[in-house]
Amino acid sequence: MMFYQKEISLNPLNRGFHLITTEILSQFPEIKNISIGQLQVFIKHTSASLTINENADSSVRTDIESHFNKMVPEDMPYYKHNYEGSDDMPAHIKTSILGNSVTIPITKGRLNLGTWQGIYICEHRNYGTSRKLVLTAFGN
Amino acid sequence: MMFYQKEISLNPLNRGFHLITTEILSQFPEIKNISIGQLQVFIKHTSASLTINENADSSVRTDIESHFNKMVPEDMPYYKHNYEGSDDMPAHIKTSILGNSVTIPITKGRLNLGTWQGIYICEHRNYGTSRKLVLTAFGN
Amino acid sequence: MMFYQKEISLNPLNRGFHLITTEILSQFPEIKNISIGQLQVFIKHTSASLTINENADSSVRTDIESHFNKMVPEDMPYYKHNYEGSDDMPAHIKTSILGNSVTIPITKGRLNLGTWQGIYICEHRNYGTSRKLVLTAFGN
Repeated sequence: MMFYQKEISLNPLNRGFHLITTEILSQFPEIKNISIGQLQVFIKHTSASLTINENADSSVRTDIESHFNKMVPEDMPYYKHNYEGSDDMPAHIKTSILGNSVTIPITKGRLNLGTWQGIYICEHRNYGTSRKLVLTAFGN
Repeated sequence: MMFYQKEISLNPLNRGFHLITTEILSQFPEIKNISIGQLQVFIKHTSASLTINENADSSVRTDIESHFNKMVPEDMPYYKHNYEGSDDMPAHIKTSILGNSVTIPITKGRLNLGTWQGIYICEHRNYGTSRKLVLTAFGN
Repeated sequence: MMFYQKEISLNPLNRGFHLITTEILSQFPEIKNISIGQLQVFIKHTSASLTINENADSSVRTDIESHFNKMVPEDMPYYKHNYEGSDDMPAHIKTSILGNSVTIPITKGRLNLGTWQGIYICEHRNYGTSRKLVLTAFGN
């Protein structure tokens, strides 16, 4: 049984959905040592989130951003938490809808993702800062 | 410490929410060997998802489908990714809202679900194809 | 490799979002024995859910409740599952949007949460009952 854990920082990103599969893999080569196991990617923030979605056509990422902006609008009259700006409270709500972590099976030293699946970081603030991730991999 | 992993395929399903608890259990009898642990069910697709919800009254599944169709409508003017049809982009968005995996505690050889909980596959395409799941169970 | 599991009950809570990080930690001191690992908190219900969000300003929790009530309204004409009251079907839908579990990395005997992150239970029924959680922690 192996257990690896690493904390990494991502450079600031624009508001929107961004593919980070390659960056995760390049920063965590220990995954290759695991025959059967799991990788968890966890984000230590409440205004950015993680999800898995299509890794090919970038319009998927643009459209998810557009739809989340409609589904969780800014400046709703019932928002009380708004002293950090119009993008603040929607960022918290989007984070809970999408989630703070993704867990992916590891098979024979590789992430066992579907052909079209990639890991996204979802930056919900207009001016995102560096984001910290905790990567935890374990297995036999 | 035991670690089991298996990839299974589900037959094509109609658009909507479907209970798969029994099928998962019947395809993964190794769960019985685990005294304390976890099962992860992971779906290798970006237009179908997994969730846990009520396992009794089928109207819950129908109503979730109805509401997701309202909350994530087809043919929104801002969708750019639509060359696979009106159900394409909503399927991607619903998948990120619901998520690609569920993880359930294992206790004394059984899934430790609540009385009313069942595992759902959520088929978001009008004409779903066979869907691949990765089942990973581990524990003592 | 250590594996700990415990089932706990939370007292009934008002409808809304509530911080439970302190209660989880006080009921699960075994986390301190784990150097690298994970904690999963799993809720055994289909009308209450778990998420991670801001642990400081309580207006975040109020605003998430307000927005979920707008995004998943009561008494929609297409709801068929309504014999337990207007809050019944929305509770099921909110549970699938937010999810039944959260998994948090453990580092050096502590939950490796961000400064502003806390664990929420989300009670979606008007008159919530006692809620059962399964806590599973494992690692080296």
